[in-house]
Amino acid sequence: MWLEYKTIIDTLSLSHDVRAIIVSGAGDRAFCSGLDVQAASQNGVFAEKGLTPTDPARKAVSIKRHVQEFQDCISSAEKCEKPVICVMHGISFGLAIDMSSCADIRICTSDTRFAVKEVDIGLAADIGTLSRLPKIVGSFSWVKDVSLSARIFSGDEALRVGFVSYALPTKQDAIAKALEVAKLLAEKSPIAVQGTKELLNHARDNKLADSLRYTGVWNSAAVQTTDVERAMLSGLKKTRPTFEKL
Amino acid sequence: MWLEYKTIIDTLSLSHDVRAIIVSGAGDRAFCSGLDVQAASQNGVFAEKGLTPTDPARKAVSIKRHVQEFQDCISSAEKCEKPVICVMHGISFGLAIDMSSCADIRICTSDTRFAVKEVDIGLAADIGTLSRLPKIVGSFSWVKDVSLSARIFSGDEALRVGFVSYALPTKQDAIAKALEVAKLLAEKSPIAVQGTKELLNHARDNKLADSLRYTGVWNSAAVQTTDVERAMLSGLKKTRPTFEKL
Amino acid sequence: MWLEYKTIIDTLSLSHDVRAIIVSGAGDRAFCSGLDVQAASQNGVFAEKGLTPTDPARKAVSIKRHVQEFQDCISSAEKCEKPVICVMHGISFGLAIDMSSCADIRICTSDTRFAVKEVDIGLAADIGTLSRLPKIVGSFSWVKDVSLSARIFSGDEALRVGFVSYALPTKQDAIAKALEVAKLLAEKSPIAVQGTKELLNHARDNKLADSLRYTGVWNSAAVQTTDVERAMLSGLKKTRPTFEKL
Amino acid sequence: MWLEYKTIIDTLSLSHDVRAIIVSGAGDRAFCSGLDVQAASQNGVFAEKGLTPTDPARKAVSIKRHVQEFQDCISSAEKCEKPVICVMHGISFGLAIDMSSCADIRICTSDTRFAVKEVDIGLAADIGTLSRLPKIVGSFSWVKDVSLSARIFSGDEALRVGFVSYALPTKQDAIAKALEVAKLLAEKSPIAVQGTKELLNHARDNKLADSLRYTGVWNSAAVQTTDVERAMLSGLKKTRPTFEKL
Amino acid sequence: MWLEYKTIIDTLSLSHDVRAIIVSGAGDRAFCSGLDVQAASQNGVFAEKGLTPTDPARKAVSIKRHVQEFQDCISSAEKCEKPVICVMHGISFGLAIDMSSCADIRICTSDTRFAVKEVDIGLAADIGTLSRLPKIVGSFSWVKDVSLSARIFSGDEALRVGFVSYALPTKQDAIAKALEVAKLLAEKSPIAVQGTKELLNHARDNKLADSLRYTGVWNSAAVQTTDVERAMLSGLKKTRPTFEKL
Amino acid sequence: MWLEYKTIIDTLSLSHDVRAIIVSGAGDRAFCSGLDVQAASQNGVFAEKGLTPTDPARKAVSIKRHVQEFQDCISSAEKCEKPVICVMHGISFGLAIDMSSCADIRICTSDTRFAVKEVDIGLAADIGTLSRLPKIVGSFSWVKDVSLSARIFSGDEALRVGFVSYALPTKQDAIAKALEVAKLLAEKSPIAVQGTKELLNHARDNKLADSLRYTGVWNSAAVQTTDVERAMLSGLKKTRPTFEKL
Repeated sequence: MWLEYKTIIDTLSLSHDVRAIIVSGAGDRAFCSGLDVQAASQNGVFAEKGLTPTDPARKAVSIKRHVQEFQDCISSAEKCEKPVICVMHGISFGLAIDMSSCADIRICTSDTRFAVKEVDIGLAADIGTLSRLPKIVGSFSWVKDVSLSARIFSGDEALRVGFVSYALPTKQDAIAKALEVAKLLAEKSPIAVQGTKELLNHARDNKLADSLRYTGVWNSAAVQTTDVERAMLSGLKKTRPTFEKL
Repeated sequence: MWLEYKTIIDTLSLSHDVRAIIVSGAGDRAFCSGLDVQAASQNGVFAEKGLTPTDPARKAVSIKRHVQEFQDCISSAEKCEKPVICVMHGISFGLAIDMSSCADIRICTSDTRFAVKEVDIGLAADIGTLSRLPKIVGSFSWVKDVSLSARIFSGDEALRVGFVSYALPTKQDAIAKALEVAKLLAEKSPIAVQGTKELLNHARDNKLADSLRYTGVWNSAAVQTTDVERAMLSGLKKTRPTFEKL
Repeated sequence: MWLEYKTIIDTLSLSHDVRAIIVSGAGDRAFCSGLDVQAASQNGVFAEKGLTPTDPARKAVSIKRHVQEFQDCISSAEKCEKPVICVMHGISFGLAIDMSSCADIRICTSDTRFAVKEVDIGLAADIGTLSRLPKIVGSFSWVKDVSLSARIFSGDEALRVGFVSYALPTKQDAIAKALEVAKLLAEKSPIAVQGTKELLNHARDNKLADSLRYTGVWNSAAVQTTDVERAMLSGLKKTRPTFEKL
Repeated sequence: MWLEYKTIIDTLSLSHDVRAIIVSGAGDRAFCSGLDVQAASQNGVFAEKGLTPTDPARKAVSIKRHVQEFQDCISSAEKCEKPVICVMHGISFGLAIDMSSCADIRICTSDTRFAVKEVDIGLAADIGTLSRLPKIVGSFSWVKDVSLSARIFSGDEALRVGFVSYALPTKQDAIAKALEVAKLLAEKSPIAVQGTKELLNHARDNKLADSLRYTGVWNSAAVQTTDVERAMLSGLKKTRPTFEKL
Repeated sequence: MWLEYKTIIDTLSLSHDVRAIIVSGAGDRAFCSGLDVQAASQNGVFAEKGLTPTDPARKAVSIKRHVQEFQDCISSAEKCEKPVICVMHGISFGLAIDMSSCADIRICTSDTRFAVKEVDIGLAADIGTLSRLPKIVGSFSWVKDVSLSARIFSGDEALRVGFVSYALPTKQDAIAKALEVAKLLAEKSPIAVQGTKELLNHARDNKLADSLRYTGVWNSAAVQTTDVERAMLSGLKKTRPTFEKL
Repeated sequence: MWLEYKTIIDTLSLSHDVRAIIVSGAGDRAFCSGLDVQAASQNGVFAEKGLTPTDPARKAVSIKRHVQEFQDCISSAEKCEKPVICVMHGISFGLAIDMSSCADIRICTSDTRFAVKEVDIGLAADIGTLSRLPKIVGSFSWVKDVSLSARIFSGDEALRVGFVSYALPTKQDAIAKALEVAKLLAEKSPIAVQGTKELLNHARDNKLADSLRYTGVWNSAAVQTTDVERAMLSGLKKTRPTFEKL
């Protein structure tokens, strides 16, 4: 399933007809209730590789390969050239945090029940939650509290600490908000929107001087776009610009 | 104008009579309504360099030089040895965010209308906003939301997410607050204040171990100052210390 | 005293009977009112080393050694393998911030009076506050405001900006909360809890790709633990798992 | 072709029957005479993507995607879990340097004619040569000389500066040497060999403290291997150990 | 004098008529016999700033400003967009190493007498030698030996360890070699040459993945140059291409 | 034994009577023939900790603690404030490389028999060799060759690739050379020598801009030393300066 998820996101990333992506969960109960315990159990890991190592070092190699492949699948939304909006509702445990942490904008319902649940199954979360939370939420004390305790926190708490940008009353409202934001982004210059995503992701991980240098080089090609003229003219004429596909 | 801005900040940075700097906007309408579209248009960029390259690669070199020079001008407030307080009001679009992101402390009016506006003219912001916002505001979802959508956000929202430290009712109040903070900083040991600014900026961009190491070396000279004794004595005697210029 | 503090924390870090640590202050007046001015004065520094250098460069070497030793003592809580909860109340100045910034979860009373006080004695804080605050609180404007001005901020303000996770009415309440959290953490798999602390600390200081890579390698050994099976079974059976000491 | 190259290397990387890989060129004339100019021309790049952008910014996005895909193909040898030995002879221009820079051990004939040839077709090499040469050859003056001038250098010069480990008289000798080394590596514990490759690659790119930390975590699983006991016993008994596949 | 040096290099960096730069010394005795001891003495430093601080911390600030300004002057050759070749002969002490370490290609006479001389005047070299030597010469043991001991090493030794690319019998020969290399570089596409310098400098200081990413973005604009077509055609037709100025 | 080694080095590091340190091996046969296989075997590791974990994850924690403690012991020579010269002869396997890689200057006999021997006992070297070799020897192909193959290389080969600075005919010669270098370093300003070591180690691990910044701050205290005046005067008067202890 996660390999398919990556394939879909990678395809949308390069699809010329796509300007923004919304990821949401089916049904009312849960966005994602976490990893399928059975499938992810150690035997599962080894079985799907066709290996049955007994040496702890060889097991470790097999596990590392599996974790890295899983990380790659989930990270696809972050690497996706198009902006990704994640809408969460109901139960949003474990993988829900891994997945949504890779999105650009997070939206949820007020009563979403979040948890970094992995500690409760004897694991440190390894598909991205622990790597990304300290970089996307400002309070390190809060990040450690929820990650170490696996306690449930609500959509409203998620909004207060900045994990999500919007907490709406119902799933319908949250989807509507996501569509509104996605529509807004889709109307902008794709050169500008995709460049902004790339530069923000680069900035988060790099020193200021490196980020400024990279930005200058990036824009040395990007500002040669005809979108600048189109956008400026539309701004002056109060019309809506149209931009070439990307 | 931006070269002059840099010259002024660089001069104040080394001026022995200055202890703190306040940057604010003239008039009631705007702190800064963004880049002068005409001047910044591509032709403008090339014209001011006396070049008319048609080769996209040579245009790119010219653009990169221009962006880096512009970044250098705006970054001067961050590199300035003295603390810089930025007071914003009214329209504060585009360059307003670039400029204020370099300041140490941001203050605004509640009704300031902020926007990372560049996307609306077909550009990814390249004078520092995208490099600095992820490092000065804790919610990455919020940073991406406002940067990708170019939506307007108020001074109150800016306070809630931590972009500014104070949002006051009127421009007059905001200026008064800035003066109060500036006066407070000006009474402290300049060795302590300027060292604190330097070490915080270094810490933001470096690993913890590197920051601690740098801090130890920095203070190995700084704590030899006579300001420590003066400050301590004044603390005990409840008098106001005076410190040598720096 | 700080060497003893390090010895205690280092011992608890490896003690097989310890699952979580709470650091709090004795008495009602203060968690920590800051460095003992007399002991920390320059003469103090040199005296305790048995050196009386007059050369500013040799003094600097002596100061650097002293600062690094002090940093090492305070940093022990961060390096400690077990989660550390810090409970603050009353006056919490200077070293209180250095110390608590190393803890994983910070709890305080609403009326705690915090201050990054060092500027008021002519110093830039050098035992860790300036290195850690930009990485544990999301608003850089707030961090600079309190660090440059040495102004007092309350427990409630600390909660609002995310410096602490909980602000309770009384010290008794704060301690109770800390015990509740500590008890919760102590019931979890120590492999999972200690791995989570390590991976979050690593993530804070490293690029995303490096953090993901490290996480995969870390868990390649960690998920071979029998705790996973125990935790999963307990989860299914709704019983409380017991885990081997670590 | 390069996508196939990556597929082959990726397959060998995980193949349990492979212990070491040798990459060499067919025929006598050349290991690789560089990129196929026709295929790599700009039109070629755009054509194979099915895009015909005229906007310089959209062209840039297309080029960037192409370069990154090409880099990924060539980098596969560096990421390959098994050690890769590259044997070069005859003309070894452009891509020959990109490819061989990713190998672990480089071997050539004395009369190999190397060149970082890209400058001569109006390009800065972008498939890895400029990124890797400064990290695999110690003399930065030499690296810049050959990269800026595109001048031809011999196998003997490559040996003198450390780009290759062995320069042999003939291609046959070079292949024989590679087989000798490969055979030697294949007899060792694969846990030890593959761990050594991973840790050296990590060390090259990371600070010392980070490398030591990563090494400790890596080996915390790896030294639990039964290979240690087998290797030690064989060492004492002067027999040749056999190790499980990996 | 060093401010003038920077002005000259900065001007040549952007001058459209310049393709390569050679820095050499006048006369037969020395390329550079090191810093003017009198001018650089502490009093000198303070005097030229018009300050007479007695406080060690304020002296330190003044020294730091002076060192950074000096570093900026010397670093200009490294930041220069055009390739810089440094030719050394005779005495080449102290600043000679600082200066030449910033050049791209180093050439000397066999009997050049080099020394990292600063230790002999009670100083750790601070204008760039200690920062750059470990990154431009592969043997760290050699770098430490000459830097700690201040011992003299010859042009031939410099060639052997890779500090220089060529050691010629006489100054005349060395200049002739530099002119030959400069002429060669001047005939190449300036887009390719200047991009190669930039990418190599970036690679030296960054992780591999960051270097590859930056390279892709850099070339996304650069390969749109008409120089590629011109160079390729000239290659096929065996003619010498001409390239637009940059 | 290694804890004692660290204690000795740490003591010499701060001893005011020491200016340089030489580490050499007793007897004729070996500098170090590598780890005591018995002591380092897994049981050994667990036994000395008083633990008998069977859980692979708990074993991993125990191993990691042990490796880090061992790394700390060996790294003491690198962190030592005084320059350390390592003299090797005879068999210099495994730990011999770990230890000597931490020294500042390496000297050996021509017939020293070196080997990164760990692969032959089923291990990736984890006490520092793999972390340091890529940073102290320029040829990455050579580093990988000797680390992956565990093949023996001579003192002469070590000199050729830059691992050592001097290869002398006999152990007596090598010791004499070390004493000569140590005597030379001991006559210099300790402020200058120790600063040079610190700045070179910092430069190796940091980006150029960070190294230059650190250097400026370091020297802002260091150049206030009276050693500068003493050294300069002695230079002018052709006398030997004496410097205060450090």
